[in-house]
Amino acid sequence: MHDLIIVGGGPAGMSAALYAKRQGIDFLLITETVGGLANYVPSLRSYLGYHYITGFKLVEKFKKHLDKEEVKVVNNRVKQISPKNGSFEMKTGNEVYSTKSMLITTGRKFRALGITGEEKFTGKGVSDCAACDGPLFKDKEVAVIGGGRSGLFATLFLLNIVKKIYLIEQDNTLKTQGGLNKISQLIKKNPKVEILLNTKPVEILGNTKADTLVIENGGNKRKLDLDGVFVEVGYDPNTEFIGDMLDTNDRGEIIIDEECRTSRLGIFAAGDVTQLKEKQVVVAVGEGAKAALAIALYLEQT
Amino acid sequence: MHDLIIVGGGPAGMSAALYAKRQGIDFLLITETVGGLANYVPSLRSYLGYHYITGFKLVEKFKKHLDKEEVKVVNNRVKQISPKNGSFEMKTGNEVYSTKSMLITTGRKFRALGITGEEKFTGKGVSDCAACDGPLFKDKEVAVIGGGRSGLFATLFLLNIVKKIYLIEQDNTLKTQGGLNKISQLIKKNPKVEILLNTKPVEILGNTKADTLVIENGGNKRKLDLDGVFVEVGYDPNTEFIGDMLDTNDRGEIIIDEECRTSRLGIFAAGDVTQLKEKQVVVAVGEGAKAALAIALYLEQT
Repeated sequence: MHDLIIVGGGPAGMSAALYAKRQGIDFLLITETVGGLANYVPSLRSYLGYHYITGFKLVEKFKKHLDKEEVKVVNNRVKQISPKNGSFEMKTGNEVYSTKSMLITTGRKFRALGITGEEKFTGKGVSDCAACDGPLFKDKEVAVIGGGRSGLFATLFLLNIVKKIYLIEQDNTLKTQGGLNKISQLIKKNPKVEILLNTKPVEILGNTKADTLVIENGGNKRKLDLDGVFVEVGYDPNTEFIGDMLDTNDRGEIIIDEECRTSRLGIFAAGDVTQLKEKQVVVAVGEGAKAALAIALYLEQT
Repeated sequence: MHDLIIVGGGPAGMSAALYAKRQGIDFLLITETVGGLANYVPSLRSYLGYHYITGFKLVEKFKKHLDKEEVKVVNNRVKQISPKNGSFEMKTGNEVYSTKSMLITTGRKFRALGITGEEKFTGKGVSDCAACDGPLFKDKEVAVIGGGRSGLFATLFLLNIVKKIYLIEQDNTLKTQGGLNKISQLIKKNPKVEILLNTKPVEILGNTKADTLVIENGGNKRKLDLDGVFVEVGYDPNTEFIGDMLDTNDRGEIIIDEECRTSRLGIFAAGDVTQLKEKQVVVAVGEGAKAALAIALYLEQT
C-alpha cells in the first residue's frame, strides 16, 4: 500500500514527483513515456529561465533533475482504477497496485478523425504530429486537416519544409480567436497554401503508403494527390482508465478545484488532463507542484 | 492607455510578462524589485529543470530571459488604483497610468510584530530574513520569534551558523502540520536551541544595536541578552494599494478563480498575493503564465 501513486509522467507528473519526494511521501510514478507530449514541442521560449530550448531537451533536464533526487519511474500503462475500502487499486497489464491517494497527470493525445485509411496509413504518410514528422516531407505536397490552433501551428511549421499545403477546415473560416488572428493572416497570404473551407476529409487512399486524400465540399467529392496527411484536429484527454469514477467536462477533461482535487476524495489531477484552458508546459509544472503539496496535506489529515 | 499593466515583478509577474510579450499584448510591467522574495531563497531544488540553484541565481536567469524577449521594466511602486470609465487608473509617486486590464502579482512581505524597538533596530540586530542576514551572526546568540513554518525554517538555517537560539512561540507547541513534524523534532533535539513556549516578545532594547529581548510568559517578564532577533512570524500580502476594490480572504489575500480572475472584471491576480496555499516559485511562474493567457482572451473579447 503506497501513500500516493502518480499516473502519467509528463511535466505535471514530473513536477509532482519532485515535490512528493521532497515531502517524504511514499509514492510511485507510473508512466508510459517520460515527458509526454512536451518531448515533441519543436521550440519552447516560454519556460521561464530557459530562453530557447526544444521540448526534448527540456524534458532531458527534467529527467536529470528527477534522477538527482532519486525519483524512480515505473514504465507501465495504467488500465483501470477502482476504489477499495477507502483506498484505491490500480491495474496495469500484469500488476496490481494499492494506494491511499492518486494523482492523475496523464495529459492528452492527438485526436483522430476516424476516417477510412487513417489508421492503416499512420506512419506511412499519415501523421498526427507535424513537429515530429514534418521534416520527412521536404519539398512534398501535403494536407493539413484542421483550421484551428493545432492545424494553424502545424501549417506554419510545415511552410518552411514542404512544397504545397492543402489546409482543410470543415467550418467556413480559419480560427482567429485566442491570439490566432496574425497566424491566420500569414497563412492566407502564403502562396504555398491552398485553403479549402467548408470541406471534410472523407477517406485516405494508397498502396504501401498514403497518396490520395478524398475530400467533400457541399456533397461534391474531390481527390487530392499528395504525399502526406497531417491530422491536426486537436486533442483528447487521456482518461480511458478512469471509467465513470470522476466528473469530467464536455471535452472529457477531469474537473478539478483550485487545490487539484477531483470529484472523488483522495484522487487529484493536474496538467493537460484537467479542464484548465492553458495547456502549457510551465503551467503543468506549476500545477503538478501544487497538487503534490495539496496531497501531502491530505495524507497528513487522513 | 495600455492594454495591460502588470503590477509586481516576482516570479508570477515575470512569467506573465513573458507570455504577454509573446501574445503581442501592449503592456507595462511596474515593480519595485525584480524577482521579489525569490531573490532571498537560499537554495531551491524544486524548480523543475534546475536541480540546485540559489533564488538569486534563478532570478538572474529569469531576468536574462525577459531581456532576450525585450521586456522592459518600469521601476516604481504603485500607490493607488481606481476604476475609470470601464478601464483603470494607477498612480505611482509622480506618474499616472491608464490601462484596460490589470494583473496584480505583488507577492507578500515578512510580517512585523509591531513591538517597541522592532522598527528602530531593524538592520541593527533585528532582521526579518534569516536566510539573508543569518551569516552576520556567526557564533552569536539570537532569538527566533515564531514556531510556525517561517520560524522553524529560520531556526534550521541558523543552527549551522549561530551559537545559541532562543525559539519563541506564543502558542503551547511548535507547528507540526504541513510537513513540519520532522523539522520540529530535529529542532527539539538540538542542544543549541532553547524553546520557549507560551511566550510573547514584548520589547527590543539596545543602544546603537539590539542587545536585549524582553519576553513575557504567564505575566512574568524576562530579559534575554543576545546579539540578534529574527522576526519570523509569517507573511502578509502586498495589497495596500488595492483599497477595497477587490475581494480578499481573512489573511488579506486576493481571491481568484481558476482563470486568475478577481472579483472585479478586468483585474486579475496571480502568485503569492492570492489565496492559493502553495507559495512556491514554480507555482507562481505557472500561475503567471495562466493569468497572461486568460488576460489575452479577455482583451480579445472586450
